[in-house]
Amino acid sequence: MSIQKPKGTQDLLPGEVEKWQYVEAKARELCERFNYREIRTPMFEHTELFQRGVGETTDIVEKEMYTFMDKGDRSISLRPEGTAGVVRAYVENKLYGEPDVSKLYYTGPMFRYEQPQAGRYRQFHQFGIEAFGSVDPSIDAEVIALGYTFYKELGLKEVTVELNSVGNPAVRAAYREHIQKFFAPVKDKLCKDCQSRYDRNPMRILDCKIDQKYCEGAPTIVEHLDEECSTHFQAVQDYLTAMDIPFRLNPRLVRGLDYYTHTAFEYKAGGIGAIDTIGGGGRYNGLVGQIAGGGNDQPGVGFGLGMERILLVLQAQGVDIPGVKPLDVYLVGLGEAAERETVKLLQGLRLAGLRAERDYLGRKIKAKMKSADRYNAAYVAILGDDELASGEITVKAMATGEQETVRLDAFTESMQSRIRHV
Amino acid sequence: MSIQKPKGTQDLLPGEVEKWQYVEAKARELCERFNYREIRTPMFEHTELFQRGVGETTDIVEKEMYTFMDKGDRSISLRPEGTAGVVRAYVENKLYGEPDVSKLYYTGPMFRYEQPQAGRYRQFHQFGIEAFGSVDPSIDAEVIALGYTFYKELGLKEVTVELNSVGNPAVRAAYREHIQKFFAPVKDKLCKDCQSRYDRNPMRILDCKIDQKYCEGAPTIVEHLDEECSTHFQAVQDYLTAMDIPFRLNPRLVRGLDYYTHTAFEYKAGGIGAIDTIGGGGRYNGLVGQIAGGGNDQPGVGFGLGMERILLVLQAQGVDIPGVKPLDVYLVGLGEAAERETVKLLQGLRLAGLRAERDYLGRKIKAKMKSADRYNAAYVAILGDDELASGEITVKAMATGEQETVRLDAFTESMQSRIRHV
Repeated sequence: MSIQKPKGTQDLLPGEVEKWQYVEAKARELCERFNYREIRTPMFEHTELFQRGVGETTDIVEKEMYTFMDKGDRSISLRPEGTAGVVRAYVENKLYGEPDVSKLYYTGPMFRYEQPQAGRYRQFHQFGIEAFGSVDPSIDAEVIALGYTFYKELGLKEVTVELNSVGNPAVRAAYREHIQKFFAPVKDKLCKDCQSRYDRNPMRILDCKIDQKYCEGAPTIVEHLDEECSTHFQAVQDYLTAMDIPFRLNPRLVRGLDYYTHTAFEYKAGGIGAIDTIGGGGRYNGLVGQIAGGGNDQPGVGFGLGMERILLVLQAQGVDIPGVKPLDVYLVGLGEAAERETVKLLQGLRLAGLRAERDYLGRKIKAKMKSADRYNAAYVAILGDDELASGEITVKAMATGEQETVRLDAFTESMQSRIRHV
Repeated sequence: MSIQKPKGTQDLLPGEVEKWQYVEAKARELCERFNYREIRTPMFEHTELFQRGVGETTDIVEKEMYTFMDKGDRSISLRPEGTAGVVRAYVENKLYGEPDVSKLYYTGPMFRYEQPQAGRYRQFHQFGIEAFGSVDPSIDAEVIALGYTFYKELGLKEVTVELNSVGNPAVRAAYREHIQKFFAPVKDKLCKDCQSRYDRNPMRILDCKIDQKYCEGAPTIVEHLDEECSTHFQAVQDYLTAMDIPFRLNPRLVRGLDYYTHTAFEYKAGGIGAIDTIGGGGRYNGLVGQIAGGGNDQPGVGFGLGMERILLVLQAQGVDIPGVKPLDVYLVGLGEAAERETVKLLQGLRLAGLRAERDYLGRKIKAKMKSADRYNAAYVAILGDDELASGEITVKAMATGEQETVRLDAFTESMQSRIRHV
């Protein structure tokens, strides 16, 4: 019996994988323009990191992690998100000692044991950025602008930014009481999750899909911001306006993770139904200290964008993205000696920077020409035993059908001069 | 207390990560020229896949895998190598039904629980290619040529190819008896591993570092090849010669994995001491059928190259590789209004394709200029409140020290025209 891929994972095959390459290349190029540099952290970390960095009572840590004991009896977990590992690396490698703000980005797989559904996988992929070391609201705005520019330059339509402030810890503690007071009369009617949220993190009730009917008229955190929080929040908005990034205030936006302070934001896209959030992030001024275990506290702000969701939106919105590059030259050998010679010619073309191919299945000329067509070859070069003997090769331009005879010893150079991308 | 990265893993930080990007970009570009297309398979697979595909009695599967039960009680293992997953994906996605040979490449993390040492990590990274569907020896030669060209174009010095044939299963069965007969008189003197290899896979004794003294004069498999194997082996050599790929025959080369047939090869590099193998591969004509569990048997040939080893050799040989790209423009605001304006100007430069930065730490002009220097900025643009009022900005070329005043409304265009890479 044949073995299948694990449930909730996917194979990215040629034809599809080029879209991923394109999206990743855009992320990389944009990060260069915004002066973010790549960081790569391991696929797994000590489980304790995520307990500290994501939160022990979150669904992610309680229910969704791939956790196991390694052969050295350490509790290890595949990373369920990207920020905790980057914060750990930032602290462990003492990047906080550098004179400039640390602006980092990552792309790669994350792992959560969830029920798979359309666009949701157990191995999924994120593009994220993190900026450490500055409390300047202009860097909150920069982070939001990078994600927005990324979506726009990829060609996504109807992208909107939703923005909120979740305050600082003092503001949140006060707001917590207001919100508990508000929900107290209906506490018993809330869904089971929200009844538990009521004590643990009542803000999250506002985010609940089931209990929206009880949220009407709930106090918003924005009404309860202190001066420091208000000033920061207003400055972020002013910078976004100056940068021409459209946004919409959403006082209900609280994000799923506990560590956010001040700025919280989400990106939404049109045309993909009800679950329209395609990425999000915020500021997390206490997280570095929490992970570092005291000392080295540094402010941070960042986002995480779901690659699968981006691909889904690109497809749903019919956005045209570049596919497989066509072949430059397909070599056809006719006769044993000529066929052997094409192996040498092929290596010459490739060393010269051309995308070149030949047949490996001993097929007849008709099948070879079909293969050249499937690869979208710009030129087919045909070598027969007679031509080989006289030191010549026939070059056919597939777009026009024009044929030309070229000296074998000038073949590579001749092909190079025909192909523009060299 | 602060949490550390798991033992045997590494963080790739800015400064180092650019080298990885460079090596990966070269792999990608070379695969395009050789008409190989990317495939991405999950980081973990059902454990059974590696039992079938790598071999149940191999060290990798017996001792080195990260194996655990997922929450659905499936035995899952982090992939210890790249080929098994690619073969599984090739079969599961029915790529064998396509008219052309499937030529695939992958890059990414692999996982083995081994004792970490210089250049050996528990999460390590490979670049690999696999070609399925052809028994043509020219594709064995192509695979070898791609790896060789990759190392050469990266600038590695003293790269050599070692080549052998390990025959087909019939040849190997006969050879097995010869080799057992040869080692029978010294069997008790062999190391513990080799005593066990004597019954399971006696060919591997030839590869043992400890027992080399007993290997002198051992029969080689090349002496026992049948006609089919000899013809194939000779053709691979002829093609390599035609393609100008230097190689050295090594009759002792057997590779660590059981699935190879016919061609086996390794790449070696100079200047890195005794463990000089930097990659290797071979033909595996029975593996697809073995993983598919009968039916769909297809020949294959491929290689796997260790990324960490490539980086190690590049460093040991002092090969110069491109580092961080310099910044195009560093914006300096002097005064509150001007500082705010730089946020807007910054976004404009970045949208225009330039790599641009400003300060986020409220630093004085001297510290800002130092920051611009650290980023190797080609230009610094200085905006004071007075200049802002008169609609102008000062642009300084850092290489020459020349200064110029530019109209604010023409600033982005003016910077674009100065920077060549746009």
